[in-house]
Amino acid sequence: MDIVEQIISGDVRATARLLRDIDDEIPTSKEILKELYPHTGKAYVIGFTGSPGVGKSTLVDQMAILYRKEGKTVGILAVDPTSPFSGGAILGDRIRMQRHFLDAGVFIRSLATRGHFGGLTRSTNDMVNVLDAMGKDIIIVETVGVGQDEVEIANSAHSTVLVTVPGMGDDIQAIKAGIMEIGNIFVVNKADREGSRKTIRELRNMIEIGCRRGGSNGWEPPIIETEALKSRGMEELHGAIEKHRSYLLSSGEDKWKEVIEKRVRIQLIETLKDQAFRTLLDRMEARGDSLDELVEKVVDKKSDPYTLVQEIISRELG
Amino acid sequence: MDIVEQIISGDVRATARLLRDIDDEIPTSKEILKELYPHTGKAYVIGFTGSPGVGKSTLVDQMAILYRKEGKTVGILAVDPTSPFSGGAILGDRIRMQRHFLDAGVFIRSLATRGHFGGLTRSTNDMVNVLDAMGKDIIIVETVGVGQDEVEIANSAHSTVLVTVPGMGDDIQAIKAGIMEIGNIFVVNKADREGSRKTIRELRNMIEIGCRRGGSNGWEPPIIETEALKSRGMEELHGAIEKHRSYLLSSGEDKWKEVIEKRVRIQLIETLKDQAFRTLLDRMEARGDSLDELVEKVVDKKSDPYTLVQEIISRELG
Repeated sequence: MDIVEQIISGDVRATARLLRDIDDEIPTSKEILKELYPHTGKAYVIGFTGSPGVGKSTLVDQMAILYRKEGKTVGILAVDPTSPFSGGAILGDRIRMQRHFLDAGVFIRSLATRGHFGGLTRSTNDMVNVLDAMGKDIIIVETVGVGQDEVEIANSAHSTVLVTVPGMGDDIQAIKAGIMEIGNIFVVNKADREGSRKTIRELRNMIEIGCRRGGSNGWEPPIIETEALKSRGMEELHGAIEKHRSYLLSSGEDKWKEVIEKRVRIQLIETLKDQAFRTLLDRMEARGDSLDELVEKVVDKKSDPYTLVQEIISRELG
Repeated sequence: MDIVEQIISGDVRATARLLRDIDDEIPTSKEILKELYPHTGKAYVIGFTGSPGVGKSTLVDQMAILYRKEGKTVGILAVDPTSPFSGGAILGDRIRMQRHFLDAGVFIRSLATRGHFGGLTRSTNDMVNVLDAMGKDIIIVETVGVGQDEVEIANSAHSTVLVTVPGMGDDIQAIKAGIMEIGNIFVVNKADREGSRKTIRELRNMIEIGCRRGGSNGWEPPIIETEALKSRGMEELHGAIEKHRSYLLSSGEDKWKEVIEKRVRIQLIETLKDQAFRTLLDRMEARGDSLDELVEKVVDKKSDPYTLVQEIISRELG
């Protein structure tokens, strides 16, 4: 059985190996991704996004348990760009794996973008495709913070859950109708804390403004109060996700198709971006161009980044 | 006087126009950036990063006031990818401008990445160069969250301030020695709140672990308690930033050079990445390739993203 067959049959070792190869940008991984692609499209992808410390991983683990109870298999990808040097991701995986230790139906992996050249959205989407081909029914992608890449990653999910805690979001800068475009479901975790009512009220106002502006596309995002550590609100959150899934599916396929197209579009753009840059780097390397020398040239003011890049582009891709 | 001379002489309108052109990716902006580059390198760049709602903009505004009292001119770039659709950034600018209304020495601009194709780090760095050439002594770059791009943007600063509030960061996932690589100074804002001592203790532990691992590069990041709304702790924060600047400058130029090289390296990589992708997009457009059609091909499973991108790359850049 070759690696493609192994992954399709759900083999954990083969899958883990491919994910590592994607992370390390091993060229053969592209060929395997190609062969796996026809087997994708069955999984439901849920994005969980929020600042560090809001309790995302506890929520995600609890959701995984609920989906397992329904007999569904679950894949979890935790994207954490804050820990590229710490090895924290691996430690985190180990701790989390213990919770699902005896359960082969849950597959957890962390990404910490070891590479110097970014491409987080692309590699996350590639990995989602792998877990999808592997046969996971539910794939949960967990992202830290609300940065540019995180927005893209969240946009690649079918349903996106935006997690906050009381006491955040009382600044004018924090509450932006723009996040309506990201969150399909809002969670106020640690809802027993001081300031919970205020945070919920502010979220509700923000959602109302967003809906009036038409940002919600006909779906009014619910706000779910949870205390993930005490399993409070988990059924409600699960219900809200399923309701959003039904909403997408029940709308005469229009909304569903929209979500699928958005997913594919992001993946295409990110892959084009990544491969264009790779092509350029490979050619620079083949010529013996060193990035260090280019940096020195600019630091010594012998050239500027704009002229230098223009020269390189027209030479290598011209 | 042409636009380059206008900007160098500190003209606000000319600068605002160029920043808009950079944001809109107008090709002529590249030529102006080239001419401005020899005039850069004088400003001190400070990054402020933290989750939404921690009070970054209040802190930044207070810092601007302190630097103004010293007679220094200040430029502020607020990067907020969560508000691409909301128009919130413009509103925010107006509110903030009022605080510095009578002060021509402060220039504030928000970036909200309207483009579909990212490039946030690149355009932020370009804009920092413009404010630098314009003659601002201090440039403060404010980023939301701790995502991939935010890490890069923070890494482009001379000093980076990581802002948090009590009650965040008590999750195992939140506290990663990796953020030592980002933060030179830690701020616990809203320090009057419950849980402040705990947050400071946890940060201190994290810093100690990071320093033992050698992540701090000889600088031990201080933790400053602030209440930005009451101006508490502002002098201490200002002092800490200046101390970090002295540290960089006093180390026989080694550390200073390291920071400059890191800045230039990030800018080169981001500009190469951006231009490689632009080149590809331009050629696709010239051929009449439509992204929508490519998306349809993949959605209909007539091809997969990997094969499709490979075909396009070898045709357009081959």
